[in-house]
Amino acid sequence: MTTVGLLEGSTEALYDNEAELRRLIGERLILLGAAAEPGQSEALADIILGRIAREAGRLVKAAEPEAADSAKTPQHKPVVIVGGAGGMGRQLHRAFERSGWPVRILEQGDWPQAAEILKGAGTVVVSVPIDKTISVIEALTGLLPREALLCDVTSVKAGPVEAMMRVHRGPVAGLHPMFGPDVASFAGQVFVYAPGRDAAAAEPLLEQIRRWGAKVVTCSAEEHDRSMGIIQALRHFTTFAYGVFLSKLNPDLSVILQLSSPIYRLELEMVGRLFAQDPRLYADIILANPRNTQLIRGYVESLAPELAMIEARDRDEFIRRFERVRLYFGDLAPAFMKESGRMLNLIQTERAERADVMSLKDAPESDGNTSSQV
Amino acid sequence: MTTVGLLEGSTEALYDNEAELRRLIGERLILLGAAAEPGQSEALADIILGRIAREAGRLVKAAEPEAADSAKTPQHKPVVIVGGAGGMGRQLHRAFERSGWPVRILEQGDWPQAAEILKGAGTVVVSVPIDKTISVIEALTGLLPREALLCDVTSVKAGPVEAMMRVHRGPVAGLHPMFGPDVASFAGQVFVYAPGRDAAAAEPLLEQIRRWGAKVVTCSAEEHDRSMGIIQALRHFTTFAYGVFLSKLNPDLSVILQLSSPIYRLELEMVGRLFAQDPRLYADIILANPRNTQLIRGYVESLAPELAMIEARDRDEFIRRFERVRLYFGDLAPAFMKESGRMLNLIQTERAERADVMSLKDAPESDGNTSSQV
Repeated sequence: MTTVGLLEGSTEALYDNEAELRRLIGERLILLGAAAEPGQSEALADIILGRIAREAGRLVKAAEPEAADSAKTPQHKPVVIVGGAGGMGRQLHRAFERSGWPVRILEQGDWPQAAEILKGAGTVVVSVPIDKTISVIEALTGLLPREALLCDVTSVKAGPVEAMMRVHRGPVAGLHPMFGPDVASFAGQVFVYAPGRDAAAAEPLLEQIRRWGAKVVTCSAEEHDRSMGIIQALRHFTTFAYGVFLSKLNPDLSVILQLSSPIYRLELEMVGRLFAQDPRLYADIILANPRNTQLIRGYVESLAPELAMIEARDRDEFIRRFERVRLYFGDLAPAFMKESGRMLNLIQTERAERADVMSLKDAPESDGNTSSQV
Repeated sequence: MTTVGLLEGSTEALYDNEAELRRLIGERLILLGAAAEPGQSEALADIILGRIAREAGRLVKAAEPEAADSAKTPQHKPVVIVGGAGGMGRQLHRAFERSGWPVRILEQGDWPQAAEILKGAGTVVVSVPIDKTISVIEALTGLLPREALLCDVTSVKAGPVEAMMRVHRGPVAGLHPMFGPDVASFAGQVFVYAPGRDAAAAEPLLEQIRRWGAKVVTCSAEEHDRSMGIIQALRHFTTFAYGVFLSKLNPDLSVILQLSSPIYRLELEMVGRLFAQDPRLYADIILANPRNTQLIRGYVESLAPELAMIEARDRDEFIRRFERVRLYFGDLAPAFMKESGRMLNLIQTERAERADVMSLKDAPESDGNTSSQV
C-alpha cells in the first residue's frame, strides 16, 4: 500500500498550511457573498483538505509504482497484442506502453510477418472478437516462443483456455477484464484470472494488472463460465428482451424521461446503453454455450407462476414470495439499499451541479420556470 | 436563478485570495510528499475554487429563497399532513417547516380531533399507504375548509384525484413525488402534478416545491398512470421476478459479487435494493390497476419468441432485432451510453476513494495482496 509520505520535519509546516487554507476558504465564502457560519466553512475546509490529500496520494502512486517496477525488472520482454487495434486491444496497448513494456501488434493483415512479430515475445495476449478467439489461437500454432506466456481476454473462458493449452506447451493464462471500452482507467476494475499452465510464469503480468489498480480474482474457467451465465448472459437477455418489448409498445421516450425520477432514469439508461453497443458482442456472450440457453429458458419459464399470481391479484402471495427473496439477499439487501442510495445521491449531486453550470451558461435566455408540460 | 452576489469592491480581494489559495494548495501537495508539477496543482486548484464557488452558491440559495418567500407571502395558512408520521409524511413535514409553513399532523389516532386539526387549514396533503388513500380521502368528507387545497402524494393518480374531486368542492391537486424516503433532499427530484380543480390555487404549493429544487412535471392523471405502468409496474415486476429466479437458482452472492465489474454490481444492487423495501408498496404499485396486469402479461408473452430465437441459436436474427431496438432508442442510445459511462466512472472514483480510506485505516493488518480466490 502506497501511503502519502510526509517530508521530514514538515508536520508543523502542514499545520500552518492547514490553518491558512481554512482561513482563506472562510474568507472566500464571505467574499462570494455567502455569509457562511463558522461550522459551514469548517465542513467545506475538511472536504477540501481531504481532496488535496487524495490528490497527493494519487500523484505519489502514479509516480512510484513504475519507478519501483523498472528497478525490479529492468526490462520486460515484448508483449504482442493479437488484435491490438480493437477496443480492448488499444486500451491494453496504452497501459502496457505507459508501464514501460515494449508492445508489438499483430493485426489481421500481419499474419505473413507473424513469426517475426512473435519472435522473442515474453507475453502474447489474444484480444479479438469472441467468435474469432479459438481460430486465432489455433493460427498461433508453432509460432510461439516456448517460454512465452499465452493469454486471452475473451468473456468466456473454458473454450479459449482449452484451445490455448492445446496449441501451446508453455505457460497459459485465461483473463477476462470485466469492463467495456468506456472505462476511464483500470483502477477499481476486475480482471478474472482462470489459470491454465504454470501460474508462476503468469505472476509478473498479474502483478502489472494489480499495479494498474485493478483487482485480480482467480477462479477456474468452469466456475467463471457458470457465474457469467448469471452475471452476463441472463442479465443481457433480460435487458435485451425488455428493450424489444419497450420498442414494440413504442411509448414516447421523452415523456417517459420527463416523468422519471433519477432512479428510473438510471434504469432506463442501463437498458438503452446496451443498444448503443455491438450486437455481435451480446449475441456471442448469450450464445456462448448451451448452459446459457438452459438458464434463459429456466428464467422465461419461471415468469408464468409470477404472472399467474399477478393476474389472481394475490397480494398476500406476492408479499410471501418477496420476503423469501429478501431472506436470500440477507444482509446484502439493506447494504445494497444503502450503497445504491449513496450512489444515486452522488449522481444526483453531480447532475444538479452540471445543470447549475448549464443554466448559468444560458441564464439570459432562461425564464426561470422549471415546470414542464407533458 | 440565484447567482452568487459579489460584495461591493471585492474583486481585487478575490484575486488576492485566489492567488494565496493556489500557492497554499501547491505547498500542501509538496508537504504531503507529492512532487506535483505546476500543471497538476493548477488543475487541482481550479477544481477546489469551483467547489468553493458552488458551496457559496448553495449557502446563498439556502438562505435567500425563504427570505424572499416570507416577504411575498408574510404568512402561510397551516398545512395539514394526513399521515405525517410515515416516510414521505416526515420528509414533507421537515421541508414545510424549514420553509416557514405552520404544519399540523393528522395521524390514525387523531380522527376524533380531525375537525379541530383541519380548521383554518390552507393545504391538506394526504400521505398514507396507497391501499388506504381512497378511504382516507373519503374520511375527510365534510371536514375540509371550502378554500383549502386538497392534494395527495400517492403513486397512482386517477383513483385518488377522482376521489378528491368527489369529496371536496374546493381546489384539488394530485401529486406524485417520484422518489423514495432515501433521498438526501428534494433537489433535482421530480414531482408529477396531475391537475384536479382550480390550478391557480395550487400554484403557491407548486412554487414551494420548485423552491425546494424539485422539478414539477404537469400531466393528466390518466397519462401519468399509463406511463407509470411502464416506468414502475413493469420495471418492478421484472426486477421482482429476476430476484425470485435468482433466489431459486441460489448462487453464492459473494462469489457473484467478487466476479462482478462495477456495472454488474450496480445492476445487482438495483435488484437487491427492491427487497430491502416494503413489499406492500410494490404489491400495490403493481396491482394498482388492470392495465398494469395487461402490460405485464404482454411482457411475459413477448419473451417466448425471444427464447425461441436463442434456442435456435439464430445470431443473425438477434442482430436484426437488436438493431430495430437501437432505431427506437435513436440518439438516446449513445447519449445513455455516454451518461451512464460518466455515472459509472463517478461511482468508480468514489468507491476507489472510499476503499483508499478503508485500506489506510486497516493498513497494519493488510498484506497488500489484492488478489482473491473464488
